[in-house]
Amino acid sequence: MKALVYHGPGQSSWDQVPDPGIKDAGDAVVRVDAVTICGTDLHILEGDVPDVAPGTVLGHEAVGEVVEIGGDVRSVRPGDRVLVSCICACGRCRFCKEARYGQCLGGGGWVLGHLIDGTQAEYVRVPFADLSVHPLPHSVASNDAVMLADIFPTAYEVGVLNGAVRPGDTVAVIGAGPIGLAAIVTARLLTPARIIAVDLAESRLQAARRLGADAIVEASEAPEDLISDLTDGFGAEDLWIRDVTITTGLVDTCTTPVLLRMASAGRLDLSSLVTHTFPLEGMEEAYDVFSTPAESGALKVVLNRPAA
Amino acid sequence: MKALVYHGPGQSSWDQVPDPGIKDAGDAVVRVDAVTICGTDLHILEGDVPDVAPGTVLGHEAVGEVVEIGGDVRSVRPGDRVLVSCICACGRCRFCKEARYGQCLGGGGWVLGHLIDGTQAEYVRVPFADLSVHPLPHSVASNDAVMLADIFPTAYEVGVLNGAVRPGDTVAVIGAGPIGLAAIVTARLLTPARIIAVDLAESRLQAARRLGADAIVEASEAPEDLISDLTDGFGAEDLWIRDVTITTGLVDTCTTPVLLRMASAGRLDLSSLVTHTFPLEGMEEAYDVFSTPAESGALKVVLNRPAA
Amino acid sequence: MKALVYHGPGQSSWDQVPDPGIKDAGDAVVRVDAVTICGTDLHILEGDVPDVAPGTVLGHEAVGEVVEIGGDVRSVRPGDRVLVSCICACGRCRFCKEARYGQCLGGGGWVLGHLIDGTQAEYVRVPFADLSVHPLPHSVASNDAVMLADIFPTAYEVGVLNGAVRPGDTVAVIGAGPIGLAAIVTARLLTPARIIAVDLAESRLQAARRLGADAIVEASEAPEDLISDLTDGFGAEDLWIRDVTITTGLVDTCTTPVLLRMASAGRLDLSSLVTHTFPLEGMEEAYDVFSTPAESGALKVVLNRPAA
Amino acid sequence: MKALVYHGPGQSSWDQVPDPGIKDAGDAVVRVDAVTICGTDLHILEGDVPDVAPGTVLGHEAVGEVVEIGGDVRSVRPGDRVLVSCICACGRCRFCKEARYGQCLGGGGWVLGHLIDGTQAEYVRVPFADLSVHPLPHSVASNDAVMLADIFPTAYEVGVLNGAVRPGDTVAVIGAGPIGLAAIVTARLLTPARIIAVDLAESRLQAARRLGADAIVEASEAPEDLISDLTDGFGAEDLWIRDVTITTGLVDTCTTPVLLRMASAGRLDLSSLVTHTFPLEGMEEAYDVFSTPAESGALKVVLNRPAA
Repeated sequence: MKALVYHGPGQSSWDQVPDPGIKDAGDAVVRVDAVTICGTDLHILEGDVPDVAPGTVLGHEAVGEVVEIGGDVRSVRPGDRVLVSCICACGRCRFCKEARYGQCLGGGGWVLGHLIDGTQAEYVRVPFADLSVHPLPHSVASNDAVMLADIFPTAYEVGVLNGAVRPGDTVAVIGAGPIGLAAIVTARLLTPARIIAVDLAESRLQAARRLGADAIVEASEAPEDLISDLTDGFGAEDLWIRDVTITTGLVDTCTTPVLLRMASAGRLDLSSLVTHTFPLEGMEEAYDVFSTPAESGALKVVLNRPAA
Repeated sequence: MKALVYHGPGQSSWDQVPDPGIKDAGDAVVRVDAVTICGTDLHILEGDVPDVAPGTVLGHEAVGEVVEIGGDVRSVRPGDRVLVSCICACGRCRFCKEARYGQCLGGGGWVLGHLIDGTQAEYVRVPFADLSVHPLPHSVASNDAVMLADIFPTAYEVGVLNGAVRPGDTVAVIGAGPIGLAAIVTARLLTPARIIAVDLAESRLQAARRLGADAIVEASEAPEDLISDLTDGFGAEDLWIRDVTITTGLVDTCTTPVLLRMASAGRLDLSSLVTHTFPLEGMEEAYDVFSTPAESGALKVVLNRPAA
Repeated sequence: MKALVYHGPGQSSWDQVPDPGIKDAGDAVVRVDAVTICGTDLHILEGDVPDVAPGTVLGHEAVGEVVEIGGDVRSVRPGDRVLVSCICACGRCRFCKEARYGQCLGGGGWVLGHLIDGTQAEYVRVPFADLSVHPLPHSVASNDAVMLADIFPTAYEVGVLNGAVRPGDTVAVIGAGPIGLAAIVTARLLTPARIIAVDLAESRLQAARRLGADAIVEASEAPEDLISDLTDGFGAEDLWIRDVTITTGLVDTCTTPVLLRMASAGRLDLSSLVTHTFPLEGMEEAYDVFSTPAESGALKVVLNRPAA
Repeated sequence: MKALVYHGPGQSSWDQVPDPGIKDAGDAVVRVDAVTICGTDLHILEGDVPDVAPGTVLGHEAVGEVVEIGGDVRSVRPGDRVLVSCICACGRCRFCKEARYGQCLGGGGWVLGHLIDGTQAEYVRVPFADLSVHPLPHSVASNDAVMLADIFPTAYEVGVLNGAVRPGDTVAVIGAGPIGLAAIVTARLLTPARIIAVDLAESRLQAARRLGADAIVEASEAPEDLISDLTDGFGAEDLWIRDVTITTGLVDTCTTPVLLRMASAGRLDLSSLVTHTFPLEGMEEAYDVFSTPAESGALKVVLNRPAA
């Protein structure tokens, strides 16, 4: 099959590689129908993630069809259309038992396109398939669903839920790239009184406005003044520099089922972030477009397997 | 002044009574501009609330203008347009310190139109004014704001927050009267995947639909079947009859400020529940209309002071 | 092997039955070293749980040694000393992913001694062993550990955590049987200001006192008066009959790992509830003792495999 | 009266100053019976808190007897023995209504010994007395109660509650001065599995051990290795450097009533932190001792009014 292979910092290519197969009883092999590129992939190419060995297929987000399963897989079967999550989960370790799959100690966590071959390929082997892929309802399109592989659960879990957004709050989103924009969309699920987006790029601020930000401000224009004005002098996020809480974290994708349910019920708009689509073999061009957003205006790019 | 006076079970009239004045340093006297009738007022008239002494002026919801304040009042001054909350709060007792104003031990709690004269009158004395009235911004109309005196905080605190509604949940609202409808509106602040309304009256079910219920069902039509169907067999509210939590409570009105902020920011629609308006002197007719909703179609009725 | 077999309401006996073996790849077979009897077992014998088919081996609590595992089991191996939890978990269904194992939809939940053969036997087959048994550290004795199979997580999860006990609270425990006593022990982990135990039996009240209740009262002696006196008139549990929350639930055993860690660290006393021990073949006598606590003074009884 | 007056960075003295009197209807004047010195007072003397004007009486912790009250005070009367909290609260502003008294916008918050004259004096005027002083039960001694004016609520609210300590957790306390030691004592209310104290001073580590730390380590000895060893490699506080949450904050003293209730019930040991006592006129010597803990071994020092 063809796949986007990492060859060390600054080097990658769309190569012919062997097809993946079942290695463990919990594996599934998925034919990739829709895949995207993450800012993290660009960091890998810049050499910022030295854990990634040359020769690894990149990518940790996909939607596709299950083509083969190991003997131990119960939740999906060949023919099922599924979401491949950026986080795999053994389901048995201390952290998986608390639904903290991102911290999995049993061989899961973020492994796809990182420690094992990933999704930017015609096929991908997914370990622990019962806990790592999600069957998709007909009502959610593949190019929408792929947004649930990483950026929407990341924005919702690490941004909105850890940030404890409640109805009536003032929310400031600093940086209106794909994750920041998904944070705006998912923050709105909790009905804050105001969402303020801050960025350097006018095009991203316009996207923020379109996706629900109530106010936008260029980072060079002293956003703290606008935030203070809009909040009667209180500032954003519960008295910034007074009672401050800072939370960080890796996504667990524990909210993927509920976000999927909401997208299916028409309660969550996943489609607005996709600015460009390509055929799968246009992977290298897609990387060029995604890595130069100032010129291309790219937010998220999606690549699709050609129709049969 | 004129006021609606309770004369014992089944008896009330729009009588001439003395004007109220300041009795304690924390009091404010408010000229009533908008007032409404609560289902609780009907219970009082049916004799269900024996604490209410004959001679008491009824009513615990109003919007009006402050005309006089005691020496200890700091938050409002004569001329301010304010919301009179159904709950007063001493601000000093054990429960007020936890923002559980409904349980106030210091002379507050639900006292207006219950233990002291209430708001269905031309003027009302409000004790502990600093914690019992809320200044209103220009952006919120009086007939909308009066909905924040009781039913919206009650629906939001006792229904939505105590019920721990989260994004993606299925919510069943049993009874689509004014409180149930306000529960639908405020549950939507948390973006449940589905809201199902159950009632006996077709007109109330239509109101539920208009205010955001995704599905409606007549109580006589086995709502548990619909709920089960809509939730893939799980039923509503986290496995009804399995891990069940039942919460009850009296409103604290601790959310009134945030609801007011949201109404002011255009995030909360308060106006849809008002079906009838009357001049203040039409109080007895308003009671007739409000107490016969099957014929009148009344949800909430509002009475207004005649323009000067 | 020998096992306690249910033969319909009122009938059970210590019978010769076939040894269990591996049926599914996730199974483990455990040799029972310590086992106990639950009040639920008495309900089954009274015919109150009609799901239990005649011929079923009873019991859902045990400690023992793994003697055989299926091909898919990763967390334990033969020779490991393990706790067999009252709740099995498939680890893949919607509820298991939220750590709500008691509601497992994939074949787990409370199945041992209920829908499949249980632990009151020389050997027991445990499905989904990776999520249903817990390896034991040397520092926790088997007869202590068996208390973690059901009553301690039940008391802690359903009583203390769902009841939201916080430091400084007043806690009333109504019924000082084994679960009530375990609730007293685990409530103390949160340092309430007072724990009040109510029961009809003087012996149980003395046990409550010994395990940490600050006050005890016979149910026939108007406990509400004592509770009111001890709490300056407020009563227990946050204004009983005012803002009341009632929670019910089936144990999930999601706290078993943390309780085990605390027992191992000397922070949780598990041993005080065991009043009688028997050899495994004394099962029928143990049932007699356990089912007549008024005469026997039994709290929990433990049966042990004879030393080799 | 005599009082410890700040005269600018590095300068303070025990001076004759005018007695305080009632200025506002909510004030109380308290005769100081027990008072302590806070690390914050040393920071003021070092010039780190430029808000403090020369001429201000320092000190924000005291126990004493009410000698005079304003016309609006309802909760205490002359003759009452009270705790003077480090935080005053207007009780009417947005933050006070959420029990976030430390952020009071109405003239409260930390004002004593900061923006107005404080407690290191024979008498102190306390504004908003209803919400700023706490009547003391006979069962709590004055020198114990004064520990509730600042360090215990600070350690409990900002450390233990904001840090979300739960039963079974591993807690690392970095810095075993008075606040760190109070954090150890109050963390124990939630029964962590392990408390590890880190400090540079052997004497403070011994105090930590005595107050309940399970392990102590000198900061120069790579505490991360010990913490890792004690937690099976996980480290303390939920995966330090992975899913990290950092919380900061000013005490609100909203837990003072519950801590007082627990001290009164014998559930909280307040006395162990006091290493030195002085008569009130020994204030300057007490400052010397408290500011040189390496030589003096001082944790908390308490100064008392001479017996009549």
